[in-house]
Amino acid sequence: MFVAMNRFKVTEGQGDAFEQMWRERKSYLDQVPGFLHFLLLRGDEPGDYISHSTWESRDAFVAWTQSESFASGHRQGSVQNVLQGPPVVSLYDAVITEGGGIPASK
Amino acid sequence: MFVAMNRFKVTEGQGDAFEQMWRERKSYLDQVPGFLHFLLLRGDEPGDYISHSTWESRDAFVAWTQSESFASGHRQGSVQNVLQGPPVVSLYDAVITEGGGIPASK
Repeated sequence: MFVAMNRFKVTEGQGDAFEQMWRERKSYLDQVPGFLHFLLLRGDEPGDYISHSTWESRDAFVAWTQSESFASGHRQGSVQNVLQGPPVVSLYDAVITEGGGIPASK
Repeated sequence: MFVAMNRFKVTEGQGDAFEQMWRERKSYLDQVPGFLHFLLLRGDEPGDYISHSTWESRDAFVAWTQSESFASGHRQGSVQNVLQGPPVVSLYDAVITEGGGIPASK
């Protein structure tokens, strides 16, 4: 399994607006091969957010970043104006996996 | 849903030893109410690791940190001697959840 995280530092007072932008976007992820799970995470530290996606493999993630779904998703306008700086992408391979899984959403 | 991450910076050349310690530990998580999923993540940045657990709720996570399972898990000795500094805990509420879920392990 593979996890991609994009870390955002949201301007003070703009957290609700930032979350609303994410809720209103179309994610285009449902149909992407190898996509497993997406979370928008709000940290305990003020303004700290992560867009967090889990994939069957790094290859599936890389293929998505080169796809039309990715381009469509990222053409929807930017959250840039409520951020304190550019988001920071970090990529992770799962070395150990344990547990009963995570249920499907909705 | 709720996510707890503990970020580790592992000393150069000690990555394999660090992973081995995690593989050999008993996690005691299987029986913990509200526990969903655990990942040990290895980042693309050298030495960058995250122990990453997903929970039904923050309350379930907090209850675990106060339980005997937690104490037993953390009594197994420390990875401290292969780290460049103390690990950093960050806690997150899932604001948006999407996708078909994550399959059970093993």
